[in-house]
Amino acid sequence: MSGSMPTQASPAELDRLAAEMTAFVRAMQQEICSALAQVDGEGRFGADAWERPGGGGGLSRVLEEGLVLEKAGVNVSEVHGALPAELARRVPGEGGAFFAAGLSIVVHPRSPMVPTTHMNVRFLRRGDVAWFGGGADLTPYYLFEEDCRHFHRTMRDACERVTPGSYARHKKTADAYFHLRHRGEHRGVGGIFFEDPGGGLEQELALAKEVARAFLPAYLPILERRRGLPYGEAERRWQEIRRGRYVEFNLVLDRGTVFGLETGGRTESILMSLPPRVRFVYGHSPAPGSPEARLLDVLRTPRDWT
Amino acid sequence: MSGSMPTQASPAELDRLAAEMTAFVRAMQQEICSALAQVDGEGRFGADAWERPGGGGGLSRVLEEGLVLEKAGVNVSEVHGALPAELARRVPGEGGAFFAAGLSIVVHPRSPMVPTTHMNVRFLRRGDVAWFGGGADLTPYYLFEEDCRHFHRTMRDACERVTPGSYARHKKTADAYFHLRHRGEHRGVGGIFFEDPGGGLEQELALAKEVARAFLPAYLPILERRRGLPYGEAERRWQEIRRGRYVEFNLVLDRGTVFGLETGGRTESILMSLPPRVRFVYGHSPAPGSPEARLLDVLRTPRDWT
Repeated sequence: MSGSMPTQASPAELDRLAAEMTAFVRAMQQEICSALAQVDGEGRFGADAWERPGGGGGLSRVLEEGLVLEKAGVNVSEVHGALPAELARRVPGEGGAFFAAGLSIVVHPRSPMVPTTHMNVRFLRRGDVAWFGGGADLTPYYLFEEDCRHFHRTMRDACERVTPGSYARHKKTADAYFHLRHRGEHRGVGGIFFEDPGGGLEQELALAKEVARAFLPAYLPILERRRGLPYGEAERRWQEIRRGRYVEFNLVLDRGTVFGLETGGRTESILMSLPPRVRFVYGHSPAPGSPEARLLDVLRTPRDWT
Repeated sequence: MSGSMPTQASPAELDRLAAEMTAFVRAMQQEICSALAQVDGEGRFGADAWERPGGGGGLSRVLEEGLVLEKAGVNVSEVHGALPAELARRVPGEGGAFFAAGLSIVVHPRSPMVPTTHMNVRFLRRGDVAWFGGGADLTPYYLFEEDCRHFHRTMRDACERVTPGSYARHKKTADAYFHLRHRGEHRGVGGIFFEDPGGGLEQELALAKEVARAFLPAYLPILERRRGLPYGEAERRWQEIRRGRYVEFNLVLDRGTVFGLETGGRTESILMSLPPRVRFVYGHSPAPGSPEARLLDVLRTPRDWT
């Protein structure tokens, strides 16, 4: 949350936003799954529809062991009903009725030369207040500055189309959020993150849409540029060790994950974000001056990439 | 904590207990590392001494890529000083001075036929109150009922030597503690767990010692019985998937891990518990009637093994 109270609106207006966001995330899920499956060329997305006993449900789509994508998840959910007591204390607004619709994507490519990426947009309503949230970030295993610039510039353009001057704030929020305090490292090279960004619900919806639409243009050119690069066991090992940090972030710090597991969310859908193959090595530290050490420098000190 | 206030004692008495526990965990570390290295036959324990800026430090000893042991950590620490504000709210007792000494062991064998195991004992003092805590549990990948019985009986005997009738309580606490709520599964087949078990500090110290001394006799016979069993890729894959649950437990629920990371503990020492190689597979579920499904049944419904 931005600290401010979320925006109030009429029930009819909130119903309309909920319906529009629901339709949008469903359409985006289809579009993004098609594009990712086509890029992979071999893997197929499954489709797991699930229902929430208290109201609503979702569709989890996961591709595993593809040619290019080792694991990719593209999930939508629209849940509603009475707010469980545990959540009521932690969610802004008043009243017991809530609605949430969202799209969550995590892509773990096979090659360590291709970065992992994540994107999420969501709409939340409690009683007569509502807000949007979302974010997108890039987690490379090897640093290609051109890729970081491309990802950040694409996300910057998405933010600026909706609210000129807003990217800097969302980039800063991402740097603060995607931070493993216990490692003194960031998860990757950042991106954007926002929760209740303000400006009115129409503008927040527009931001969520722009960010979701920017996902493929931000990521696919990077994937295409790096998918053919050679690598060996050493690079793969480094990728698996870094994936361990991704696990640490998601299970210890990621709000959606921790909150979702605590409040009875659908475990398999929440944890689709975890990388397929991971190593945990005691006290690993790359050789000074190596490409691995160069990545670590950037993870320790976020840069301005635009 | 058992819910009762920890035991009060004179400063001289608490100093004596702290010194005795410190000497004990150091001696046990040496004994257990020697025994595990001998059983492995090839791997060697490193020795990482570290200092805590606020006072005290520890010695982390980790063996990786052994013949039988894929990763084993045997850590001691004795830390003291002014209690950080973050901890002060969450630790029983009063005053700003604390002392903690402990021994933590996690063993991840290479073969999926050999269970993972964990043991920990610790002494904590704040101002003029103090208490002991600890536990030991077994996490098999394939169920050999004889092994579960042996492990539990050995730990039962350790508890009963100190306080007749106490095993049942510590076993029940372990079943409640080593529980992944979001999976509806226990981490393994349990063991014992206690925090401020009562009966006076001498008796608590005796329990910590008995449990630590019971570790090798509880585990090594199991390791010796199963280390030669054949296995293939399928069993190894199941082991790596189950190790993922171990990661979920430690990073989401384990009090020592979560508390340690939040309060600035030594990250590498805390996270030595994480398994060396792990898989996260979406929606994995073993075939009905398979050995893997038989294990899951037991993880879902803890048994009395003695």
